[in-house]
Amino acid sequence: MARIIKVAAIQTAYDLNLDANIKKTAGFIREAAGQGAQVVLPSELFQGPYFCVTQEEHWFATAHPWREHPCVTALAPLAAELGIVLPISIYEREGPHYFNSVVMIDADGSPMGVYRKSHIPDGPGYQEKYYFRPGDTGFCVWDTRFGKVGVGICWDQWYPEAARAMALMGAEVLFYPTAIGSEPHDETLDTAAPWRRAMQGHAVSNVIPVVGANRTGFEPWAGYPGGGQRFYGSSFIADHRGDLVAEFGKDEEGVLAAEFDLDFLTTHRAAWGFFRDRRTDLYGALSGPRPA
Amino acid sequence: MARIIKVAAIQTAYDLNLDANIKKTAGFIREAAGQGAQVVLPSELFQGPYFCVTQEEHWFATAHPWREHPCVTALAPLAAELGIVLPISIYEREGPHYFNSVVMIDADGSPMGVYRKSHIPDGPGYQEKYYFRPGDTGFCVWDTRFGKVGVGICWDQWYPEAARAMALMGAEVLFYPTAIGSEPHDETLDTAAPWRRAMQGHAVSNVIPVVGANRTGFEPWAGYPGGGQRFYGSSFIADHRGDLVAEFGKDEEGVLAAEFDLDFLTTHRAAWGFFRDRRTDLYGALSGPRPA
Repeated sequence: MARIIKVAAIQTAYDLNLDANIKKTAGFIREAAGQGAQVVLPSELFQGPYFCVTQEEHWFATAHPWREHPCVTALAPLAAELGIVLPISIYEREGPHYFNSVVMIDADGSPMGVYRKSHIPDGPGYQEKYYFRPGDTGFCVWDTRFGKVGVGICWDQWYPEAARAMALMGAEVLFYPTAIGSEPHDETLDTAAPWRRAMQGHAVSNVIPVVGANRTGFEPWAGYPGGGQRFYGSSFIADHRGDLVAEFGKDEEGVLAAEFDLDFLTTHRAAWGFFRDRRTDLYGALSGPRPA
Repeated sequence: MARIIKVAAIQTAYDLNLDANIKKTAGFIREAAGQGAQVVLPSELFQGPYFCVTQEEHWFATAHPWREHPCVTALAPLAAELGIVLPISIYEREGPHYFNSVVMIDADGSPMGVYRKSHIPDGPGYQEKYYFRPGDTGFCVWDTRFGKVGVGICWDQWYPEAARAMALMGAEVLFYPTAIGSEPHDETLDTAAPWRRAMQGHAVSNVIPVVGANRTGFEPWAGYPGGGQRFYGSSFIADHRGDLVAEFGKDEEGVLAAEFDLDFLTTHRAAWGFFRDRRTDLYGALSGPRPA
């Protein structure tokens, strides 16, 4: 019997109300499960607004140890109830360390562990180096009830190294929770198309489906250029060729879902030959210092 | 004064007549130079038909030491005459070794060296492992009169590792001569879109323009499924966002050209921050054995 996996992405807007954000996310998770989805991806840091637009000390107080994070304690039981896998993006505190993390919940509601975002961006509107220590878990692939899945977090999605590493670890689908939108320093800069293209490239080069869930909506910030940040949605599910088999526009809220045949993909990936022909003897420069 | 580079790709069909193929290519090179192009990319192995569709011993006799290859001896003087850089794709013989190579000719007609294709494909219609030893040069970036350029060859283009390695070596534009088209074992399989997407992904992830030159036309092979192989053209020039700034359809012949501001790109690449935030401590798996 073929291993078919149905995956889903949630695209929605969030605000300051944690409980309302969790409730909204839970509603879309139920909707996705109702459509038969087995792995459901909410977007990045759905606990509140994307607070990294500025540097303000009080946001550190919204981080929690991952087992106690309110998004985890609220949604892990839902995963068990629905029998689905949930990658839950949180602001994590571990002692004096603060991470941008994903807690992986298996379909029985049990936590499989935590992945901490490896690549931390920094730029106007995305002050993440102030809030997050670069992840110390390395890339993670989770052997869930429905297949082996890799999860990167937002900025990780621009790195072919992260996608490749997860594919080498056996990932059969890649998931990327995201929060990206307008650029306050340059209102002409729209990164939605390159954002998708980087991940479509991972899909092709690794012969693997990719799921990207981004937030949408306008989040007001007093004194901020344009009065706040607009997130551009454009969530998608790409197949192993990079074809978009499901996608949202910039402003829609809802659920995307798509099915993949993991056994077909395993054989088809082999037939493409990319992994057969890798020249590991030539890739040392990627993990070493810049070559002379 | 800004460093502006104008690059071009040639898309055309070839046949068994070496002299005619060189003449045809030279004509398009002149046309590109007439448009102001400074680096002009012909497609892969334009010395003849794409002979790798089958395994036939006599094709080994069409390889030559790179300094003596007829494509090099004919076109290097043209590079000097026009004052342009030419990456010349050839079937190379070095003693008992046979490579799929690019000879890099600088704008004064002098050879800068040879790059030997690192990744060698193998599959129905693309029997390259029979004809070519995997390259032993490593990836190469050439400090030409007009900028630092990296050249990969066909199958190399699907590998994010190759693009990243060249970018780390200082490449400012990536070039990929190609010969790709129909798949004799599956006439429904059209790889043109993924072919572009893999390279558009490299453009985004490295904030670098990418030039892909593919052959077009139908090449008859007796006894072959469908009577021969149809090459799908679709040559393109992508900017640093992966946007296609110039492109051909599947059947056109001619020249594509586009200009890029290398100084703008250097600064803009830095501002994106991808290279700032790379986690070389986590990329060891890419060059090592498959992780457990």
